[in-house]
Parts: sequence; structure tokens; C-alpha cells
Amino acid sequence: MEALVIHAPGDLRVETIATPAVEPGQIRVRVRKGGICGSDLHYFQHGGFGTIRIKEPMVLGHEIAGVIEEASAQAGGLQVGDRVAVSPSRPCGQCTYCQQGLQNHCLDMRYYGSAMRNPHVQGAFRQEIVCDASQAHRLADTISDSEGAMAEPLSVALHAVRRAGSLLGKRVLVTGCGPIGALLILAARRAGAAHIVATDVSAFTLRSATRVGADQVINVAEQPDGLLPFSADKGSFDVLFEASGNERALRGALDALRPRGVIMQVGLGGEMTLPMNVIVAKEFDLRGAFRFHEEFAIAVELLNKGLIDVKPLISATLPFRDSGRAFALAADRSQAMKVLLDFE
Amino acid sequence: MEALVIHAPGDLRVETIATPAVEPGQIRVRVRKGGICGSDLHYFQHGGFGTIRIKEPMVLGHEIAGVIEEASAQAGGLQVGDRVAVSPSRPCGQCTYCQQGLQNHCLDMRYYGSAMRNPHVQGAFRQEIVCDASQAHRLADTISDSEGAMAEPLSVALHAVRRAGSLLGKRVLVTGCGPIGALLILAARRAGAAHIVATDVSAFTLRSATRVGADQVINVAEQPDGLLPFSADKGSFDVLFEASGNERALRGALDALRPRGVIMQVGLGGEMTLPMNVIVAKEFDLRGAFRFHEEFAIAVELLNKGLIDVKPLISATLPFRDSGRAFALAADRSQAMKVLLDFE
Amino acid sequence: MEALVIHAPGDLRVETIATPAVEPGQIRVRVRKGGICGSDLHYFQHGGFGTIRIKEPMVLGHEIAGVIEEASAQAGGLQVGDRVAVSPSRPCGQCTYCQQGLQNHCLDMRYYGSAMRNPHVQGAFRQEIVCDASQAHRLADTISDSEGAMAEPLSVALHAVRRAGSLLGKRVLVTGCGPIGALLILAARRAGAAHIVATDVSAFTLRSATRVGADQVINVAEQPDGLLPFSADKGSFDVLFEASGNERALRGALDALRPRGVIMQVGLGGEMTLPMNVIVAKEFDLRGAFRFHEEFAIAVELLNKGLIDVKPLISATLPFRDSGRAFALAADRSQAMKVLLDFE
Amino acid sequence: MEALVIHAPGDLRVETIATPAVEPGQIRVRVRKGGICGSDLHYFQHGGFGTIRIKEPMVLGHEIAGVIEEASAQAGGLQVGDRVAVSPSRPCGQCTYCQQGLQNHCLDMRYYGSAMRNPHVQGAFRQEIVCDASQAHRLADTISDSEGAMAEPLSVALHAVRRAGSLLGKRVLVTGCGPIGALLILAARRAGAAHIVATDVSAFTLRSATRVGADQVINVAEQPDGLLPFSADKGSFDVLFEASGNERALRGALDALRPRGVIMQVGLGGEMTLPMNVIVAKEFDLRGAFRFHEEFAIAVELLNKGLIDVKPLISATLPFRDSGRAFALAADRSQAMKVLLDFE
Repeated sequence: MEALVIHAPGDLRVETIATPAVEPGQIRVRVRKGGICGSDLHYFQHGGFGTIRIKEPMVLGHEIAGVIEEASAQAGGLQVGDRVAVSPSRPCGQCTYCQQGLQNHCLDMRYYGSAMRNPHVQGAFRQEIVCDASQAHRLADTISDSEGAMAEPLSVALHAVRRAGSLLGKRVLVTGCGPIGALLILAARRAGAAHIVATDVSAFTLRSATRVGADQVINVAEQPDGLLPFSADKGSFDVLFEASGNERALRGALDALRPRGVIMQVGLGGEMTLPMNVIVAKEFDLRGAFRFHEEFAIAVELLNKGLIDVKPLISATLPFRDSGRAFALAADRSQAMKVLLDFE
Repeated sequence: MEALVIHAPGDLRVETIATPAVEPGQIRVRVRKGGICGSDLHYFQHGGFGTIRIKEPMVLGHEIAGVIEEASAQAGGLQVGDRVAVSPSRPCGQCTYCQQGLQNHCLDMRYYGSAMRNPHVQGAFRQEIVCDASQAHRLADTISDSEGAMAEPLSVALHAVRRAGSLLGKRVLVTGCGPIGALLILAARRAGAAHIVATDVSAFTLRSATRVGADQVINVAEQPDGLLPFSADKGSFDVLFEASGNERALRGALDALRPRGVIMQVGLGGEMTLPMNVIVAKEFDLRGAFRFHEEFAIAVELLNKGLIDVKPLISATLPFRDSGRAFALAADRSQAMKVLLDFE
Repeated sequence: MEALVIHAPGDLRVETIATPAVEPGQIRVRVRKGGICGSDLHYFQHGGFGTIRIKEPMVLGHEIAGVIEEASAQAGGLQVGDRVAVSPSRPCGQCTYCQQGLQNHCLDMRYYGSAMRNPHVQGAFRQEIVCDASQAHRLADTISDSEGAMAEPLSVALHAVRRAGSLLGKRVLVTGCGPIGALLILAARRAGAAHIVATDVSAFTLRSATRVGADQVINVAEQPDGLLPFSADKGSFDVLFEASGNERALRGALDALRPRGVIMQVGLGGEMTLPMNVIVAKEFDLRGAFRFHEEFAIAVELLNKGLIDVKPLISATLPFRDSGRAFALAADRSQAMKVLLDFE
Repeated sequence: MEALVIHAPGDLRVETIATPAVEPGQIRVRVRKGGICGSDLHYFQHGGFGTIRIKEPMVLGHEIAGVIEEASAQAGGLQVGDRVAVSPSRPCGQCTYCQQGLQNHCLDMRYYGSAMRNPHVQGAFRQEIVCDASQAHRLADTISDSEGAMAEPLSVALHAVRRAGSLLGKRVLVTGCGPIGALLILAARRAGAAHIVATDVSAFTLRSATRVGADQVINVAEQPDGLLPFSADKGSFDVLFEASGNERALRGALDALRPRGVIMQVGLGGEMTLPMNVIVAKEFDLRGAFRFHEEFAIAVELLNKGLIDVKPLISATLPFRDSGRAFALAADRSQAMKVLLDFE
């Protein structure tokens, strides 16, 4: 079969790789759709991020859906022909953190398409993948493969929303409305947020934010003081989801956040300079949110039941052999939210 | 003006009472719709519940909406002609509990139409009511007076759901599907519950439960073992909302609730005999939920925005002069969910 | 070696059993001291409790400390001669609950000396035991074997206290001052409780309660209204630890517990009739606490550092061959708190 | 009477001011001891901090204890001759935050000796003070006035520890061991921390840290890699109390903090540059802690009962007329922890 292998920045090749045998408890999935994630873009554009760098050829990709072609006996009820979303997260199950239910902090995680460990963990942008049955979650007939490929980024958003505590009736601010920001709007609304304001510097992404349910959007490039009305009486928002990874976005939101407000930092960011005296005096609660674990099953269930609709976020689908064009489009925040690759 | 005054069980009279003057910070509201609550029924049928008994004539009612006829200068922006839902909850603001943000436990609460204290606090089933502007919440044009009158019982449901913690992706069981049970289904769904099962002994109420979004309903009168499939592996549900106040409903749900499951007891109930060894061994977390405080504003906001739709629960509207028929209908769980009185 | 084997109520025999070989990752411990628990007493007096019944001969016991006689290579640093407390809890590590960090709800738990499953899990009242190295926790030189044998019941108390949330500065009521109640007093004080009141019907146990730090003790047999002064303004205590398993103790404490108070039910109890309307109206939070998991390591660390002193609770130590007398003494709440067996 | 009035940096004068009349609900306290706080030092050395600047003469001080000289009728049981610690915190009780139990975020706070508002709130370094009876908490006979003056900074530490959640059995790191850091060690131990490591750059403060119960101290000036052993397996500490306000201290501790670790930022700090990618990837929970409310009463109760002993932290007591020397000593971290002024 063929796969998308990154060798160096800008050097993404279609290569033939072998399909491993299906072991007991495993299935073989014919991959149909795969979503391009921000981290895929980082590998493609810069060869990695921070200290994480590509040191050997690596198959990219971790947001996929497809159809089961072969199922072992112990596949937990999954059958050939079932359409599934496949979780890229494979914690060890044995370490301290796994035994505490914190699988996203596993000491021996093997996450698809990640250069965090050496040798790298090969990814899922390939025509076929053999995985554990427990990674695969059945899609309802009402859900397309493309929507199924969104289960992974939706899981990231759901994990962040769950870490924020109950949102029922809360006032929520989302800074940065790329795919994750938009999914956070969907997830926050699903969780009962009463009022959602979104900010970005791109008119295109803000239109998407409106389409997925933001009550109000503010282009902070055009209206730098757009959040000012929310800062009366020490601030209005109960929760901030910071999805831009941008220091200015976070700093610019602090006055609008009420004392004891929760800041969920979802965008990885790098070094950020923060006014710690404000964080102390307003007793903010700044929490990181990283990947997910049980949220993958929840994501698929919410998609299957139509309780979250990700269709407005799918901007385009291109053949995987045309990956150059697909990655260029995915990188253009004035034109695209999520770009999918078609592996058929 | 006229009001509905209870004198004794079954003795509910239309009587003329005076309208007080509007003080600074107050408004006068022409009451349009008022919902009949379970506690109103208890006063009407039995003269009270538990140790709480009618000792003097009392205007009933605490679920109302209407239009502002007069507003004092300090009415916080409310104006004559605004349509509003009026909260019946008037905590003192000074006591230990108010100063801890637990206004529903106020040591000096004056809740409309309640015989908990003496002299009783007169209620809101009247043609006009003078109240503090802070009790009144403006209704959107898209919302009817009848829906506005549902803000109070919806607040009760929202309070219980908020006390249950984040429901995003959770599996929820609701036992007892009268008006409060049905509103719990709506609120739990709004808060992101992934799967909601409802039980009752009445086919009518279960149809309502389905209409407001329950994924599955079980008539436990017809299927006493209906919850059995949920008891594998120590139980399936994360949260139980017990809205029947019935010991059998609560006991019957315990096997279906997973370890560390949360039981929100919303139905007041009386004496209940519980298997404490099961509660201990499965480490359940049984929490009472009583009335509400800040949830009233949230209820109106969610109604105004169409994020919760209570229309399916309004069974009938009758003139307040026809209160006998209205109360009889409200008491009939085979025919009615919420019955409203029309005060115009 | 010899072990204490229960055959039927009252029929506890010293019998010779084989010592298994030490597998990799295991150690062999020469048992020195073993504490008699309430469940051991139940097996001895009644053949079990509730639906749990002895169906075959079973070695009793699960509170032990001893010295390592043999250690396999992979024993995690443990060495021959180390004195250790041994945890009786052996969760599977694989099931849903283990993977959520809820090992005390393991679907395949093998807890020493328990007839919950069939065949029963043999216990630790024996001269030698082979166990996983991960079950054994090294005792400091300053701690006796007897104190080490208290690590298990202390773990139960610590687990309950941790489930109650932060106790720093809180007002705590403990009902029932047997060994677990007394350990709860110690653990609550260690966790920062500002004021601890303890109730019981036995002068002896209340003297123990005072010795371990209760600020006030009330003999509710002599002073049935002893808690009355605490019921002003809807109640004084923030947290109730109910360790008697007695319905009257729980009911009698409700008026003294403030709204939103936490009730940690630790005593297993059986059927209890509770005023659910009070639980609802005061929004109590009644939580079961069952066994422990990571608290065993914490118990040993707190003992080792002298941060909790259990010595006042050790009433007597008798040879294991004299088990009849030991069990009789352990059952007498007018004479004994914890009774230990000496296996040497 | 006389008071210590700051006019400008370095310009602290003893001046005569009037004593106001005692209103109903108030008391007059003869101030005996007052502690010099870091904020007092900032006013003295720099005329303020951040944007908060002295704009008019202001009596300094907010950590005091004394004896009641006059009590109004409604003084809640307080009597002439009672020795009391006086809380400097006077929230309005009416605003949104007060009504949510978040009095430390009061929109109309009047905190003694603070230039945060204009006109400034005059402080408590004076021979007599008239205050509300609710601000005064009676000291036990076993507690000195000097210890009573420590109730305020102890409240700050207790508030931070309570915001950190249950510490029972936790591993705690404290960075910065000035008076607040040392009080955090005391409070964390009182709350059940199993292991406490403290870091600083001063040998003197680290000796104090040991004296108040730190299990291990590390001088990071001498051992920059002193925390390295704690960083195995993604980190050891459950909770970090950052009391230095120093960016390097916070950054240096992140590797030693386990995933999902809580960072309580207590030192106000200013701008800090943080590795946000680490905070996200390890899902830290960084919470500000600011002042206190109900913790003042708790502080006095814990002191009164001997459950926390602050005596080791009182370095020196000087006459208030000798304030220059006292402030110089208080600023010298190689010689002094808490320096008290004597107002008699």
C-alpha cells in the first residue's frame, strides 16, 4: 500500500510500505479520509516544533476514518464492513499514569505520526492500517467518513471542555478560531454554555465561528479594544478557551475574565510572558489541556447522534497524492478550516 | 385585584386583595401566566406536606410571567411594557449562607406561596404583583408568557444539573418524568449528556420524556426488570436524577449506576429505606438539590436563546377563575405535564 | 506453616498449609502481627454479612506486618530483612475501573480473607505469606510491627477523609468511635480539621476518641440531646464521618450538619431509613467510602514519619494460637479497640 | 494617639491622629503588636508596587493584635479586656462577588493600609483602632499578642492551601521561604502533606523552613540542579506553592511537578515568561491565591488550639518609634523572617 512519508521540511513523499499481519484483537482498516492537523503542518513546514524534530522518515497523520477489511476473532464485535473512526492514542495501560486514569500522560505513549519518541511512531496517512480493535469506534450510517475523521480533533476539544468543569449557563470566550477553536465553540455549546464570544484576526475563521454557533465574534485585528465592554466589574467571562497559542490573545483576554475565571490553554504556544500579578490578584485558574483519552468514544457518540455537527468545518477534500496542494490549503487561514485527504 | 387564596385543603378561593405601592427599586407586574407546581397541588390536596401546613389563608403560586405596568426609577433598566419572568426567591442577602453564595439556604428566605414560615409568605397567583426589579428577568420576543412561566421549574432542574458536575458525554438516568423529570432531561441534554434513559410508571409522561429528548424510556410498571441490561460490570449510568421522590424508583436504579456514580435527589420524598451497604460499597455520591438561586437568570437566558425548548411540556392553559378544574388536571399524570393558569 | 482457618461461625482452627514458591516480582514475608478487623469478627460470629457467606474453609485476615525472608530479583529494591506492611488489596490492573484509577472497584479484585468471590480469596493470618513486592511497604525503624499492622485500617480512614475533600479548618463530627472511627479522628486531624466532635454509646471508646485528639466527645446513650447545641442556624458541622453503620447515629446527626454538609458513610450498615426530604432540603452530599488503593502507601509514610500515631489504639496483643480469646476481646467495645495477633 | 504614616519612599513618620468614636457594632482596640508585611516594605522602599502608588499620606499596616478597650452593645459577645487579632479585610457584603462568597474579590474592598483605592484606606499601625466587632477574633490565653499578629499572614497561607484542594498524603514543593513560604509549609503540613521540600537562595530562610517542618530544603543558589532528582517519570510533586514571585523559581520547578500538578502562585510577581507548551503538555493547573476571607477565623482557631505554631517565625520585636530599624531588619532575608512592631 501507499503512505505519506515526511523526510524533511517540505519533503513529503508517497511511498509504498508493507501492511503488517492482523494479530488477535486487531483489525485492518482501509483508510478513507484523513484530516490534516496543525502538528502535521508543523512537521511539513518546519520539520517539527520546539525540541521535537523529525530524525528519520515518518508516516504523518492521526485523524482518520475508514472501513474494516479484516477483523480478528477477538475484535470485540467489530466486523468486516463496519465504518470506523480510529483513535491514534495508544497508551501502555501499565504505567503510573495509566493506572490513575491519566492515559494522555502515559510514560510509554505511542501516538500515531509523532516524532516525540525515537524511533518515531509511524502515522496513519496510509491506505491501510492495522490497529487494535479498541482503537476503532463504529460510525453511524448518518455520519460520513469525513465527519468520522473529525472525531480526533473533536476529542481534543471535548477533553479541554471537560477539564473546564461544568459550563451550563456559563459565559465563554474562545480566542483563536482555527479548527480547534471552532470545535471548542461546538463543544462548549453542547456542554451548555449560555453565551459564547469568539475572537480571531481572520474574517474567514470568524465566519466559521459564527456558523458553528458563536453568539458574537470580534476581529481583534480590526477592533483591538473589542473586548473592552466585557471588562466592567472585574470581568464578564467565566471561562476562556485559548486556542491560538498566541501570547497577545491570552493577555488581551485577562481583563474580560472575571475573578476565579478558568483559562483553558489548548493552543500549545511556546514561551509566553504573562502578568502574574493579575493572575494572582484575580485568582485565575490556568489549566493546560493536552490530547484526550476517553473523549474519543464520546466524540464518536456525539457525532453519531447528531448532537454535534462538524460538517461546517470541513473546507475541502483532496486526493492524498495531491498532498502538496492540500497542505498549502490547510495552512491558509483565509481559505480553510479543516482540509481532508482522500485515500481511495 | 384578584388572587387565588388557599384556606384549607380543597378550599381555594378567588379573593380581592390590595396592590401595594411601588417602592424605589421595585416594579409592578401584570401577571399573565402562572404554572401549577407540585407544592401548589400538595397545599390544595393535603394542606401541605410533612410538617409544613397552612395555618392561615395564603395566596398560592410561584411560577409566573407577565408584563411591567409600573417601574420605579431604580429598576435597573427595566421599563413599562417589558415582559418578564419573576423569580419567587427572595433571600435576605445578609446571613451566613447568603454571604457564602448559598442563597437557597438563606436563614430568612421569603419564597412566594410558602407556608414554611409564619406568617406565611403570600404567593404570586394574583393579577398584579409588586416585586424587586432584581427578581424580574426580561423575556425575548420569541418567547411566550407561558414559556416564561416555566423559568422557575426550569431553574430547579438547572440547579440540580449544575450540582451534578459536568455531564458532557455522560450516561444519565432520570427516574420520574413529571414536569421536573422532563425538565431534567432537557437540562441534562443541554449540558451535554450523551445518553439519557428515563423511567416512569405512566405511558403519558414517558411520551413526554421522549418528546423532550430521552434516548430511551422504560415503563417500570410494565417492565420491572427494564433496567437490568444496564447493570453489567457494576453498572452503566454515571448520574441518576431521581425526580419521583419514590423509594422504589431510587432502589431500583442502584444496580444500574456505576461505582462513584452521582445520585441527584430532586424529588423531596419523605422517609426512604436505602441499602446503605450498596451506597458504601459502590461509593455512590447522593446529593440533595433544593430550589435554585442564580439559575433563574440562566433559565431565562437559555429560553430566550432557544437553547432549551419547554413548549412540549405545556399541556393546557385555563382561566385562573377555573382553578378547580386546572388543579384537577395538573394532578392527573395520565393527561397533563405542566398546567398553566391565565390571569388575564 | 500454620494459618487461622475459618470453617463455620465460631469454628476457627489453626491448620497447616503449604507456602507457595516465590515468583519473579514476589517476596516471602514472615508475618509477625495481624490486626483483627470488624469483618473478621463478622465471619467468626455470623459466618459473614449480608449476602456474603463462607462457603468453604478460608484463611482469615488482611491487616498484617512482618519481615521479608526471601525476595526475588525483581522485588523493586525490597531486601531480605526489611520490615514491611503488606496491602491485602490486589486489583487486576486491566479492567475499566482499574484503568480509571478506581482500583477499589476492580471487577476482578482479590482481597485477602474475603468470601465475596468463589473460590474465596485466602487471607493473611498465617505465619508466612508470598505476595507481590508492590503490596509491601517498608516500615521505618521507629515503627513497630504492631503499628505496621495498623496501616490497613488507617488506609480505610485516609481514603474516607480524602473523599471528603479538603478538611483544613473544617468542623467535623465522627459518629461511632471503634477502631475505624478513632482512625478517622486521627486522619481528620492530620488533614487539618479545626474542631472534631465524636459520639458513641460506649465510655471506653469515647476515652479512646479523646486520646487520639477529639476536641469533644458525647455519649449519646447518656445524653441523647448532646448534639442539640450544634443545630442552631441550620447546623454547625461541615463534615460527618459516620463510622457506626447505625441508622440512629446518622439520623441523629443530620440537624447538626450545615446545609451542603458532606456525610461520609464509612460504616457499611445495612438497610437504613432516612429522611430524604431533609437530605434534599439541606442539599447534603452523602458519599460512600469503601476500602482504599493508593492510601496504603500514604498510611505507611505518615506512620513512618510520626505524622499519625496509632499506638493509643492498640489494646492488646495475643498469640494467634489463642485466637478464641483474641476474637472475644476484639468484639468487646467496652474493653478493646484494636486487638492484634502475634504470629511468632 | 500616634500612628506610622508613610508620606513617600523612605519617609515614614510617627504622627498624631484622632481616634474615632465607637459606633454600634464596633469596638476600640489598643493595638499591641503589628507585623511588617512585604507590601509594607514595598511602600516604604519604593512607594508602592506595579501601578499602585502612594498618592497621599497613609497609615501603614494590616497585621495586628491587641486588647479591647471599649465595646459597643452589639459587639457580638466581645468584652473589654479581651485580647484579639483584627482582620484588615472589610468587604462590602453587597456586591456580586460578596454575594457569591468571594469576598476577597469585593468590588468595594477597604483593606487596611492599602493604596489600591483613592483616597487610600488608612492602616492599622497605630496605638488604637476602632473596627467592626466582626473583624476581631478572640485570642486564647495560651497565645501571645505577637502570635496573634501572625493571624493575618497565616490566613494568606491557609487560603492558598485551601485553594490547592486536599493535601492529605500529597508531595509538596514550596519555592521561596520568606514569611509566607514558611507559613505555607506550616499550613501544608497541618493539611496533611506527607512530604514537603522547600527551596530558596538564603541559608537563613531555609533554616527557618526546616524549623517549621520542611522534610528537605534545597539552596538553589548553591545547588542549581537540586530539584533534578524529582523530575524522573515526568515529576514527583503533586503541588507547588510558589511564594517567591520569581520567574526563575517557577520555571525551575516545572520539571519536578507531575502531570496534572497544581501550581499555587502566592507571590504576586510581575511579568513572568513561562514555557506555555510545558504547562499545556503536562496539563498543569496554575492558580492564583490572593488574600483570604473566612480563613482569618480559621487561622485564629488553629493558633488558639496549638494546631499551628508560628513562634519560630518571629525574628524580632522593636518599638514602633524605631520603625526605620525595624523595616531595615524586616527587609534583610539573611537575618529576619517576621519582624513585629510593639505599639505600647
